[in-house]
Amino acid sequence: MATLEEIGERQLIEDFKSFIRPEGRVGPGDDAAVIGKDIVVTTDVVSFDRHFPVGMTYEQFGWYAAAVNFSDLAAMGARPIGFTAALALPPTLEAQNAYDIMSGIDQCAEFCGTGIVGGDTKKGPGIVAGTAIGTMDGRAPMLRSGARPGDVVAVTGPLGGPAAGFAAIENDIDCQEAKETLFMPIPRVNEGVELSSSGIVTSCIDLSDGLGTALNTVCKSSGVGIDVEFSFLQHEKYVDEISEKTGIPLEKLLLGWGGEYELMFTADPNRLKKLYDSEIEFFIIGMVNDSGRPELVREGKRSEIDYGEY
Amino acid sequence: MATLEEIGERQLIEDFKSFIRPEGRVGPGDDAAVIGKDIVVTTDVVSFDRHFPVGMTYEQFGWYAAAVNFSDLAAMGARPIGFTAALALPPTLEAQNAYDIMSGIDQCAEFCGTGIVGGDTKKGPGIVAGTAIGTMDGRAPMLRSGARPGDVVAVTGPLGGPAAGFAAIENDIDCQEAKETLFMPIPRVNEGVELSSSGIVTSCIDLSDGLGTALNTVCKSSGVGIDVEFSFLQHEKYVDEISEKTGIPLEKLLLGWGGEYELMFTADPNRLKKLYDSEIEFFIIGMVNDSGRPELVREGKRSEIDYGEY
Repeated sequence: MATLEEIGERQLIEDFKSFIRPEGRVGPGDDAAVIGKDIVVTTDVVSFDRHFPVGMTYEQFGWYAAAVNFSDLAAMGARPIGFTAALALPPTLEAQNAYDIMSGIDQCAEFCGTGIVGGDTKKGPGIVAGTAIGTMDGRAPMLRSGARPGDVVAVTGPLGGPAAGFAAIENDIDCQEAKETLFMPIPRVNEGVELSSSGIVTSCIDLSDGLGTALNTVCKSSGVGIDVEFSFLQHEKYVDEISEKTGIPLEKLLLGWGGEYELMFTADPNRLKKLYDSEIEFFIIGMVNDSGRPELVREGKRSEIDYGEY
Repeated sequence: MATLEEIGERQLIEDFKSFIRPEGRVGPGDDAAVIGKDIVVTTDVVSFDRHFPVGMTYEQFGWYAAAVNFSDLAAMGARPIGFTAALALPPTLEAQNAYDIMSGIDQCAEFCGTGIVGGDTKKGPGIVAGTAIGTMDGRAPMLRSGARPGDVVAVTGPLGGPAAGFAAIENDIDCQEAKETLFMPIPRVNEGVELSSSGIVTSCIDLSDGLGTALNTVCKSSGVGIDVEFSFLQHEKYVDEISEKTGIPLEKLLLGWGGEYELMFTADPNRLKKLYDSEIEFFIIGMVNDSGRPELVREGKRSEIDYGEY
């Protein structure tokens, strides 16, 4: 019988899905679950050993632990109504650092219009298991499975920031602003609510595993293909500079890396005015087709888009 | 500045309460939080190093991880509508053991009328952070703060089982039945719903930290005292035997230890018929007064009841 190490984390998560029995309309495979009438819930674990890059503060680690969960709510279009934080921290940790983690969680929850409603703490290696709870307020949740050929594909902001930030750290490049996008991702909660309110969005997903993975996931869930026009991708401002300095291809920074918390959505192209009239910012990056897979169109040449590495 | 070890877990949990901002009617200090209209949520961490006694199976560990959370919902009177499980497991763990944990969680959730709706897994030392979500269905949540002098105090079942089970393990006594109450606590979800439906319950708490701690907590939260009549306490069947064999005083097994998941509640003595007419089992153990603290009355003699050790 295999160990978890031999099976690998991705496979384990797949295997665990067989235990998930949605009470409501939405099953495993989406960013969050819908239960009861319109309660949305999601849980995500972050740890010191995997999500605490050099230069991050404990407060930012707390913010991050909350943000990854709120981002999952955002992808469904839910309005956050609470957050619970379960911490497992080393006994040798300075207490002030633990308070800073809680403070970071609290600030992120407040940014998302809610607060910490419960928590627990035990000894452990430095783990925060957060659970975000939201409500649809009667709106239909946005899923990954609704994209239709002919829809436009859009994202809520410029890309590549966190990847560039990580590359800056790895290559000892002094670019604090790039690192900040990695340390303090902004969950697109308002955008998610607006998108789900519009009635024209056919699918939505967050970019936590990177644009490449998001595109593949939506193509698979919706049974469609997507063409992405490379020149349409908006770059976070220091991405080009860091690509140049490190030699990491732009394509890799923009598509192949995660830790990114913009939303990607597909929408009815004939009713886009609804979104242009709203307050949210977004960029069209491509079109849905029936090819069955995502492809990048760059200077007229096509290439397959892979799942990211994150 | 102190480390977490120096501060201690109980103090840390106290300190963390300053970060908790309830969105709804119920604040920190109760078994669970009420958010939104009538959603109840609670989170609890269990770990291999603290909650995995000798003889427990992985399936039972999973059940336990879920049960402690559902018990918190039960104490408020909420009906469970979902459970999320965030796991941090050692890479060297046999995958089958991980599936067994999930299966145990699943079985407990099903017992409580719901299912696993979401999860996450990362590397870690063996930690399950569970979050249970419930609804009040319009009922008022039962708090710890509503007990009034003159109320009766009751519990939903016999006591001392888990303490006796633990003592059996420690003293190498072969009593599987006692151990089972420790390994597979039954969350009193139906009882909680019935109690909150009755309209006569003034406070409720689960016995996860033991009867002594529960009594002290309700006295403090409600600003009351409680007299417990020792002869009214019902003993789980092997408790007397294990007390005799180990020399651990009965009082200690019945009051001083946790891991117990019965509910303790206070209720209006003039309308008890409502509860006698219901299907739930309960035993009256004492009366609420205005002394400000819990006391044990044993053969006419009074003694203070301390917080338990668990």
